[in-house]
Amino acid sequence: MCEANAYMVKNDAETLIMESVDLVEPEGEGAWRLVGIFGDQKIVKGRIRGMNLVDHKILFEE
Amino acid sequence: MCEANAYMVKNDAETLIMESVDLVEPEGEGAWRLVGIFGDQKIVKGRIRGMNLVDHKILFEE
Repeated sequence: MCEANAYMVKNDAETLIMESVDLVEPEGEGAWRLVGIFGDQKIVKGRIRGMNLVDHKILFEE
Repeated sequence: MCEANAYMVKNDAETLIMESVDLVEPEGEGAWRLVGIFGDQKIVKGRIRGMNLVDHKILFEE
């Protein structure tokens, strides 16, 4: 499986938001809906700071 | 490997921009730098429309 883990980055520290993210979709302005491989969902407010897919990381920032 | 392929979506049609993308990083306002697993790079103007990591897809739109 090639899902990724989502992190919030603040002051260069990464805090795990959600593991095993499959889908990332815009949720209105300034927010993203994360959907996990088991259908679990989470809304993240912020911007996408970057992705590192080989490391399975999606980074967000406020 | 868990890289993804990047597509531009226009009128519901997906056009392949780049295969085997590892890194996605903001490139100023309104653009993204894609870096492939072999170090190749491409700048994409637009927004991220969504990601489907299990399907290895990153979708952009203008």
